[in-house]
Amino acid sequence: MNIRKLLGIELPIIQAPMAGVQGHALAVAVSNAGGLGSLPCAMLSTESLRNELEKIRSQTTKPYNVNFFCHKPPTPDNEAERNWRQTLSPYFSEYGIDVNTIARQSGRSPFSVEAADVLEEFKPPVVSFHFGLPEPELLERIRGWGGKILSTATTVDEALWLEAHGVDAIIAQGIEAGGHRGFFLSKDIVTQVGTFALIPQIVRSVSVPVIAAGGIADAQGVAAAIKLGASAVQIGTAYLLCDEATTTAVHRTALKQDSARVTALTNLFSGGLARGIVNRLMCELGPINHIAPDFPLASAAIAPLRAKAESLDRGDFSPLWAGQNVSGCKEISAKLLTKELAGL
Amino acid sequence: MNIRKLLGIELPIIQAPMAGVQGHALAVAVSNAGGLGSLPCAMLSTESLRNELEKIRSQTTKPYNVNFFCHKPPTPDNEAERNWRQTLSPYFSEYGIDVNTIARQSGRSPFSVEAADVLEEFKPPVVSFHFGLPEPELLERIRGWGGKILSTATTVDEALWLEAHGVDAIIAQGIEAGGHRGFFLSKDIVTQVGTFALIPQIVRSVSVPVIAAGGIADAQGVAAAIKLGASAVQIGTAYLLCDEATTTAVHRTALKQDSARVTALTNLFSGGLARGIVNRLMCELGPINHIAPDFPLASAAIAPLRAKAESLDRGDFSPLWAGQNVSGCKEISAKLLTKELAGL
Repeated sequence: MNIRKLLGIELPIIQAPMAGVQGHALAVAVSNAGGLGSLPCAMLSTESLRNELEKIRSQTTKPYNVNFFCHKPPTPDNEAERNWRQTLSPYFSEYGIDVNTIARQSGRSPFSVEAADVLEEFKPPVVSFHFGLPEPELLERIRGWGGKILSTATTVDEALWLEAHGVDAIIAQGIEAGGHRGFFLSKDIVTQVGTFALIPQIVRSVSVPVIAAGGIADAQGVAAAIKLGASAVQIGTAYLLCDEATTTAVHRTALKQDSARVTALTNLFSGGLARGIVNRLMCELGPINHIAPDFPLASAAIAPLRAKAESLDRGDFSPLWAGQNVSGCKEISAKLLTKELAGL
Repeated sequence: MNIRKLLGIELPIIQAPMAGVQGHALAVAVSNAGGLGSLPCAMLSTESLRNELEKIRSQTTKPYNVNFFCHKPPTPDNEAERNWRQTLSPYFSEYGIDVNTIARQSGRSPFSVEAADVLEEFKPPVVSFHFGLPEPELLERIRGWGGKILSTATTVDEALWLEAHGVDAIIAQGIEAGGHRGFFLSKDIVTQVGTFALIPQIVRSVSVPVIAAGGIADAQGVAAAIKLGASAVQIGTAYLLCDEATTTAVHRTALKQDSARVTALTNLFSGGLARGIVNRLMCELGPINHIAPDFPLASAAIAPLRAKAESLDRGDFSPLWAGQNVSGCKEISAKLLTKELAGL
């Protein structure tokens, strides 16, 4: 099945959903340019989700993608949370934050019946998932309105699992990718594979189309991914400086430095493993620290530190998500970037 | 500078030097096929080196590469060695090995005046290095006979350093690569970059030709690396099952299993970080364990365990070096594999 026909797009370019740095505007711009724009929905309330979808529907007639997480929410653990706040207490003192005022909410929910109810009003043509797939009955609802289903694999085993569970295409996420790793069968970082090795092995193992992700920054990268057997690419980092992205000022500044070349996988900002530019918190606690509570609980205690530091133009406590190749970041419109990525 | 002209080769394929699994036979076969065959010299005595070079010279008139390490030998540390042997003691008991009979020699020496003296007799057309570069006077001797100099970079910073120190071309080693990582400016695993992200960033940063390494397994991979800006590729893993390789039986068997997809970076077998198929020792001690002595000292205490286990057809204590894509391993001649990799 040709992926452009499958997804109804002209260009083999999918804009990666990036929660926290974009909303409908970026998705609309990419879809209108002929690629597939994506709306990250993991941090949206049902009201916000409906609001965003209304804007997309009023601003484009092209296909678009909505992305959800499908993690199993962890049971809150008071002792783990206490240890985490204890570890962060020198920073709370430094910024004059009263630890008792810090909320416990993480703000990230897995795909749900309520979200599916909202989607049903809009019938988005593509729904993508991170961390596996939701329950079969939720997938059936999406199929019911003709929605195509994508999910992320970080290993051949995950790709085989996703194919067996009926996805229409697989996003092969190499270790270079920025943001959260979509792994779900094994949480062993050792099993994580570079894009160059991952794409051809997944292509060889499944019969659905494969979308390459991780380290793809320009038209040459897109062409190389296609050579490796990918049917399309999913690109996030390169869009972070686009006019339509809501990337914060500290994040934009960080992306333009030479030091943006040094990223690491870290669990400090959410409890899940994600790649970002190395900053103060990652240096001081180590990028991977077992004291951080399980995904997504770690983020609650970081939030006030991040807010205070960003108000002082510092990204010391911000998740500066980025992949291992920021050379494609450009301060241009997403329309222009999408065309450039497609070699037009 | 066109790299084929620079190195005098017809095909943009360099066979990666792989100490312990090959000698002159593999190098000769690849050079005679039009690629650049490589002789790993880090574990050879001067006598063995001369012997191997005589065989190469008598069996090919084509250019070839000799590879050396240039690590700084660590000061032996009795306490560290004692702790390492203590950690391994359950295995010594299991195999009935008397710990007092174990040698302390690691068998890996950095490039030296003595090695250069032997090389001078043969004037190899290409000399490549791992872990940086040797002293300038040793490089000058190589340049004196017209030898071209290559070395490995795992980051943009290392590539800039190598260019500033006068290498003729840079091998960009992505995190997918099997065997020892060539990093030398930072030993922080966090800085290590996937092939797909590394190649274009190094190509953009230096003016010498860039040779891509890591995860390249077939002609499509070679074409993709060229698309990313590489002038040539260096391939190791795919040659491990070739007729001319001296890969052990347990290593060959391991490479043919599905489980060969799961590799890890480990310091257990030499003290240096290297990628191999996950085996018993890596599972039980963790692939990276700080108790292993510095490179190359860790290998001495492993050697008798490896020998005993291999005599029982077990690879539990063997360094089963492999990259993250073993799908290109074929039990054919290196001549045929080289032609296939070049798309002929």
